[in-house]
This record gives sequence, C-alpha cells and structure tokens, in this order.
Amino acid sequence: MKIEQNPPREKWVELLKRPQTTVDDLEQTVDDVFDQINNRGDQAVKKYTELFDGVTLTDLEVGKKSIEASVDKVSQQLRSAIDVAYENIKAFHAAQKRSPVEIETMPGVKCRMEFRPIQKVGLYIPGGTAPLFSSILMLAIPAKLAGCQEIILCTPPQKDQEVHPAMLYAAKKCGVDKIFTLGGIQAIGAMTFGTETVPKVYKILGPGNRFVTAAKQRATKHNVSIDMPAGPSELMLAVDDSAHADYVAADALSQAEHGVDSQIVIVSNSNAFLEDVDQAIQQQIKDLPRKDIAEKAIENSAFIVLDDEDEMIAMINQYAPEHLIIATRFNDKLSKAIINAGSVFVGNLAAESIGDYASGTNHTLPTNGFARQYSGVNLSSFQKSVTFQEIDKNGLQNIGRSVEEMAAAEELFAHKNAVRIRLNDLDKNGK
Amino acid sequence: MKIEQNPPREKWVELLKRPQTTVDDLEQTVDDVFDQINNRGDQAVKKYTELFDGVTLTDLEVGKKSIEASVDKVSQQLRSAIDVAYENIKAFHAAQKRSPVEIETMPGVKCRMEFRPIQKVGLYIPGGTAPLFSSILMLAIPAKLAGCQEIILCTPPQKDQEVHPAMLYAAKKCGVDKIFTLGGIQAIGAMTFGTETVPKVYKILGPGNRFVTAAKQRATKHNVSIDMPAGPSELMLAVDDSAHADYVAADALSQAEHGVDSQIVIVSNSNAFLEDVDQAIQQQIKDLPRKDIAEKAIENSAFIVLDDEDEMIAMINQYAPEHLIIATRFNDKLSKAIINAGSVFVGNLAAESIGDYASGTNHTLPTNGFARQYSGVNLSSFQKSVTFQEIDKNGLQNIGRSVEEMAAAEELFAHKNAVRIRLNDLDKNGK
Repeated sequence: MKIEQNPPREKWVELLKRPQTTVDDLEQTVDDVFDQINNRGDQAVKKYTELFDGVTLTDLEVGKKSIEASVDKVSQQLRSAIDVAYENIKAFHAAQKRSPVEIETMPGVKCRMEFRPIQKVGLYIPGGTAPLFSSILMLAIPAKLAGCQEIILCTPPQKDQEVHPAMLYAAKKCGVDKIFTLGGIQAIGAMTFGTETVPKVYKILGPGNRFVTAAKQRATKHNVSIDMPAGPSELMLAVDDSAHADYVAADALSQAEHGVDSQIVIVSNSNAFLEDVDQAIQQQIKDLPRKDIAEKAIENSAFIVLDDEDEMIAMINQYAPEHLIIATRFNDKLSKAIINAGSVFVGNLAAESIGDYASGTNHTLPTNGFARQYSGVNLSSFQKSVTFQEIDKNGLQNIGRSVEEMAAAEELFAHKNAVRIRLNDLDKNGK
Repeated sequence: MKIEQNPPREKWVELLKRPQTTVDDLEQTVDDVFDQINNRGDQAVKKYTELFDGVTLTDLEVGKKSIEASVDKVSQQLRSAIDVAYENIKAFHAAQKRSPVEIETMPGVKCRMEFRPIQKVGLYIPGGTAPLFSSILMLAIPAKLAGCQEIILCTPPQKDQEVHPAMLYAAKKCGVDKIFTLGGIQAIGAMTFGTETVPKVYKILGPGNRFVTAAKQRATKHNVSIDMPAGPSELMLAVDDSAHADYVAADALSQAEHGVDSQIVIVSNSNAFLEDVDQAIQQQIKDLPRKDIAEKAIENSAFIVLDDEDEMIAMINQYAPEHLIIATRFNDKLSKAIINAGSVFVGNLAAESIGDYASGTNHTLPTNGFARQYSGVNLSSFQKSVTFQEIDKNGLQNIGRSVEEMAAAEELFAHKNAVRIRLNDLDKNGK
C-alpha cells in the first residue's frame, strides 16, 4: 500500500478522484422503455421483466398471503434485530418533525410555513444476492412518519417470482401499502407513469444500479422528483494514533466488500498508524467470503498522511464523503468543521455498519461528492413546505406602498393595481 | 366566460389541464453548448452571448464601480420599498433556521442531525423588459442567511452590456459576491463547469425561460443540483361571496399579465359571484398596459362552480397550484386541508402581489403541479443536513448483536466483523 505523504493541495483532485460513471449510453434505452410503459402499461412492464430479468411474472403485486406468511419464515433473532433497528430509526426520524414556522414580519403581516406530506411515494429496493430489508426500513419509516398516504415499493423478483421474507417482514412492519416484483428501468417507469396495476407516484426514492440511476434521472422529466443521484458507496476515515488499527481496518473492509468500485480514503497524521492499518487489513481480509471484491476495492483505496489538522478538515470537505469515520483526539474540532459529508461516525466504537443498520440515522446518503449539495434521506425527503400569508388592514397599510412601488418598477401594473384597489377601499372607509 | 357547473371528478383532469411544455428539442443544443463551455471556458461563453443575445461582452463580470454607482441611480422611493421587502423576507427566512436535532435512540447511542450551508451557489435571474430585482431578494437573502460562502449571480446583459441599477442595488444589499452578465444556456453552463472568470457552483437556483429550464435539467447530469423545474406561473382562487369580486378580478389580472401562458383557475360555490368577477375583469382589463397579454391568459382561464366545500379542497389538491388565494367563510378549514400548493394567500386583503414582493414568503415556487412534491425556495434550499452518531460501550452492547444479525442476513460479513471485533474487545476487558 502506497502512503501519500502530505500531498500539496494541487494534487488533491487527482488523489481523491472518483471513477467517472456516466449513464448517457442508457438514455435511449430508458426513453424507449418509458415510452412503451406509458402506452401499454402492465403488458410492457411484464415484457421487460422477461427480457431484462428473465422472469415471467404472473402477478406484479405481492399478495397479502405471502406478506402475512413472511413473519413465520423469518427467524426470531432476525425479527428482533429488525425490530430494534425499526425503533431507533423511527425515534431519530420522528425527532426531525418540525413545527410550523410563524412570524409577523410587519405589524399586520403574518407569514407561516407548514409542512405537508408528499401524498404518493415510490420506494425502490435493489435485488441482488442479499435481501436489503435495511433499505426498506430507511425509506419506509420516514415515509410513514411524514404522513405519506400511499407508499409503494418495487424490488426485482427472485427467479421464483418471490420476494425474500425478511423484506416482506420489514415492509409490512413499516406500513408499506403495496409491493411489486419489479426491478430496473421498468420499475421506475411503472411508478413514473402508472399502469393498470402500479400506481403513479409523485416522488421515487431509493438506491439502485446504473439502469435505475439512469431511469430515475430521466423520470424527473416526467413530473416525478427523486431523492438524489446514486453512485458507488464510499467511506473516508480521519484517524490518528488514538484510533485502533484493527477497527479502522474492519471498517475499511466493510466498505470494500460492497463492490469493486467502493471508495475508501484513509487520512491520518501518523504514517506508522497507517502502516498498522494496512497490516490489519491484510490480516482480516483473508477470512472474508467476499475477499476478491474487497481486495480490488482496497487496491484502489487511498492512504494519505496529513500532519496538519486544518489540512485534514479541508480534505474532508473537498472530498465530501458519503460516510466519514472520525477517530482522533480532536473529534470535536473535526465535527464542527465538517461541512460536506453524508453521515459521520464519531469515536472508536462507532462502526459504519452500526449506522448502516440500526443507530437511527439514515443510510440512504449522497455519494460521488453529492454531499456538497444533497442531504441524505431524512424526514423532510417525504415532505414539502407550504407558505401562508395573512394580511390585515394595518398590514396592508404598512406594506401596500412598497409593493406598489416595486410592481411599478418591474412594470407589472396589474400587480400594483391589486394592492391599489384594496388600499382605495381602506381609504374610503376611513381606515 | 363559460362557467363550469359542478363538474364531476372524471372531468377534472381535462378541466385543469396545463399546457404541455417540453424541452426535449433543446437537449442537443444544451449538450453542444455545455461541451464548448467545458472545453473553452470564457471564450465559448462570450461566443454564445454574441450568438444568442446579440451582445459582444468585453467583461463578463460587473465591476465594483458599477455596483457602487447603482445606489444613486435608484430612486429613494424604490430603495425604501426594496429595503422593506428585504427586512420582511429576511425575517421570515431567518425564522426558518433549525437547531440541531439530537436524541439518544438507545442508551449509549446518540444520533444528531446538523445543518450546513451549500458552500457555492449560483443564482439565475432572467432578463426581459423589466428588472427582476425582487427575484434577487428571494434567492440571495436565504443564501446569505444559510451561510453560503460564495454566492454568484448571472443575468443576461442589456444591449449596452449593463445590468439595471435596481438589480445591482438589490444584489449588493443581499451580499451577492459576484455578478455576471450572462443569460440562458451559457449562464447555466458557465456555473456548471466553471470558466476562467465564472466560478463553478454546487447548486443553481432561480427562474428562467425554456432554454434555462432545459439547461438546468441537463446540469443535474454534471454534479450540480437545482432548485426545481420551472414552468409558466399560475394562480388558483377559491372564493365564496364573502370575497370582493373586484379584488378577485385584480388578482386574476395580476396573474394574467405575466404572460399568455399564465394559468388562472377560479373556484367558487357561487355562480353569481363568478359572474361578478367576470364583469370586474372586463372592466379592469381595459386600462392595463399589458392588456393584450392579459386577455389571452384570461381566455384560457377556468371558472368553476363547486357547491361542496370538500370537493373544492379535493380540486385544489389535485391541481396543486403555485399560488392559491382563499377568500371564503371557511378559510380555516381550507388552510388545514391544503396539501398541495406553493404559497397560500388567506383572506380578502392578501393580494398575491404582496407575497410576490414583500410579505416575507418566497416567490420562487413550484409550478406545473410540482407543488405535489417540491417546496418553494426556502432557507433549507441553501442547506443540507449531515448526521452524526456517537456510540459508547453501553451503546455498543445494546445495539451490537442486532447489527451482527442483520449484517449476516444481508450476507455482509465484513459489516458484521466491524462490530464483532469491537464487542470482543469489550468482552475481553470485562465490559
């Protein structure tokens, strides 16, 4: 493992470079699939499931019986674990509820901001080898808390058309209204346009591969909003020799096992500590079932020595990591100075995997540097704000002239008139 | 004016139909311009300003002297009016500041959400016949309050390369860092990629025509986020005979003068009142400088009688208006039931133009039904949330087993190991 020694800032861009992923090549395919789904509904959705997933669906929707039966098929231990995660995630997201904001900006001019649920939301949960029930918790719990009226979920069918019982258990527990065995572009298309079976939604949230990413980006052209663009997962660790090398190694590997394109950046003020971490990684990696994947990801990781704490802060904010572990003697200083990061794990015991599953924070986070401008999924991802204003006679008299003046300056005379006609009445009626 | 009488719900979609606007035809142009700007920077930006705006720019940036000189060129009355609006907008957006959210989800597991500014933002203000200083206030005030470090502004140059003094006055007052005389696709491209002169930003906000809309949509493919998609402005009015027909007419016309594609929908439980409104409109429209525009917009407006209050609520939420005026005897009931709307004006004195300029609420609002899933611009448009978690020994013991169980079920063994290795140490050290 090559350790970069105090690289100057002009080298950072190159050093922190992420693999460039583009979905441009998929746009035409997405447009074609969307067009078919928009015109032919369920029929098209089934066709593409056969074509892309090799599964012939008899039903798109998972039946109530399958969902009910899921409880008994999940082990008691796993159910208890999911229940713990559920409670923590619910508690943290419930704490994010906002009261209306209300002030009188001038005497007689009252402004208010209230929060309303997005009525119909679609959650996408990727398939793959493992059942991602944790992502269901992360999306469906805040959706329910926000008061969304219709919460639907799409996930690719297994070969036997089924959905893993642990996913059904999680979805049922969270109050998901309908579950569809649909994946990829056709899932996003079905939720965007609606079909005979799948309801049209207003917003689509959830992770996915590049087909899903391309389809979500394209869906925004069809009156649907999305949570954020997706990219490969990533972890930055800012550590000094008060951290434990074997913990740091374990955290790096938990990131590395996600995929060969996982990003890992370890920054430390101690070269010796980084060497210890490297050794611990080589030791721990041997026993991992996903060793081959993890090895490739580790090869692409960056080990960087930065002696200066402020340089470390600058590098964190430049990289804008999805996950950030800080285990140093100056965690407080770092925490305060971090501007760009998705979720931060503070101290030696805060393994990333705790936040991935159960601490209560959300694991649907901005990748690819998007922490510069996007929040991770949170309660407000399922809400929007509506503003209200009430103006009384006093208020109109306080504000009316200013509005007239500005409307005239912007040459909007009907705007001016809407105030003038009211002011005239007040004047006539002797204020 | 044809008045629809209690149309059944199946007719609503047709009745509330908005003009379909697509920017698909512009995608190739945007891609080409972006490509040129990405490769040739200022040179390309200048070329396209010549081509599209017919203006040969010597400088892209407005000089400090022009900005300083703007104060004296704006009338004292207009400056005072802008100052009133500034204070109200600032007060309402400052009231939106959030404290960190912090809870202990389980003993020893602390989760926190903090709010951080988006460091670099770009504001777009359209050109046209009138100087839209009000939009500068609406975007730059919350940007500054949020703590954005770099706030830049692009607006198309007038023929003499200048920017209207009222706009410079507003920008200066709000603390905009740099102003560039750039419009359309080239402005969005410059802020997306950065040039020798124009800084690259993380998020672009502000209204614009279809070229700007197409460019903003496309910019989201290049690691920039945007506020929301834009469309023609719209106003819905829900009124009964406690409203004033001439006020309603004046508000409808203030919407109508924006453009021929402005949308106006008036819903009432009184047919007679709607006839009075129609008459008042015919009366008031005669004197408007923008009579021709307003007439066309009024022709396309919808007058609808709905006897039932709940039907009225349902129609409002189905239409999801950008602006909504409610002037009825049941305003409270309506206010509570409104889920989909951008900004709501409550009562007879709350003219839309008051909110457009000065009440304190934001006027950058979701059009085209996007109030179903988007908020209008507000303080949080310039922020993102970062979550933190801290876990102590007690917390690790409370949560560790659950995380291990779930990681194993998702077949992520390095995730499990990151917890196990810490738990083992705790066990070894006798808890």
